[in-house]
Amino acid sequence: MTETIEVRPIGQVQAAAEGKAAEVEIYAQFLDGLEGVEQLEHLWVLYWMHELAPKDRQILRAHPMGDRSRPKRGVFALHSPMRPNPIGMTRVRLLRREGNRLVVEDLDARDGSPVLDLKSG
Amino acid sequence: MTETIEVRPIGQVQAAAEGKAAEVEIYAQFLDGLEGVEQLEHLWVLYWMHELAPKDRQILRAHPMGDRSRPKRGVFALHSPMRPNPIGMTRVRLLRREGNRLVVEDLDARDGSPVLDLKSG
Repeated sequence: MTETIEVRPIGQVQAAAEGKAAEVEIYAQFLDGLEGVEQLEHLWVLYWMHELAPKDRQILRAHPMGDRSRPKRGVFALHSPMRPNPIGMTRVRLLRREGNRLVVEDLDARDGSPVLDLKSG
Repeated sequence: MTETIEVRPIGQVQAAAEGKAAEVEIYAQFLDGLEGVEQLEHLWVLYWMHELAPKDRQILRAHPMGDRSRPKRGVFALHSPMRPNPIGMTRVRLLRREGNRLVVEDLDARDGSPVLDLKSG
C-alpha cells in the first residue's frame, strides 16, 4: 500500500513562445520509441507537474478552476494540479516530427515539465 | 535528465469478475480527494501496469496489438503496455460510489493494478 514506484522522465516540454510552436523533446536514449509516431495526428502526453511543492501533494480538496467562489471538491473529481501524484494528461495535435522533437499544438503543460509517456490518441 | 520521480499508489483496481462489476478502491488516507466524484459520469484512471518486468521497460519497439504479422513500431506511437514508464490510462463510466470504492464500467486494467490518479473526464 505504501510502496513507491519510480518513474523516469523520457523527455521534456518546451512551451510555445512568440512565433514558436510548442515542442516535446524526447531524450536520445528513447528515440526508437518514436518510430512511426509521425503517422499520428494526435498524441496523449503524460507529464509531471514539476512546479508543485511537495506539500501540494497533500492537498485533497481544491476550488474548481481555482475559483474561490465555488465550494471545494475532492481533487480526484477535478483537473486541479494539486493531487497526490501530479501527473498531467494533455492531448496534442502533432504538426511534425523533427528527429527527437515533436512540434505540437494544444500542449497544456508548463515549460520544462518532465515528460513521462506518450501514447497514440 | 536522469533524475527519478517517486509516485505512490492512491488505491488499487479490482477487475470485474463473474456477476461483479469492476471497482477502484481508494485508500482511506486519500478519501477526501473523492468528494463530489459521485457527480461525474466518466473518470480517467491512471494506473501502474504492475505485472510487467523491469526489462519490459527497456523495450522501445513492439508489434501493434501484439500482432507479429504487423511490423514493429515505437511504443510511443502505440498503446502497448511495454514502455519506459508503464502508466496506463483508462476512461471508465462511474456507476456508483460506495464510500472509498468506485463501482465502474469499462475499466481496462488488470486486477490489483496500483492506481496513481483519478481525474474528471
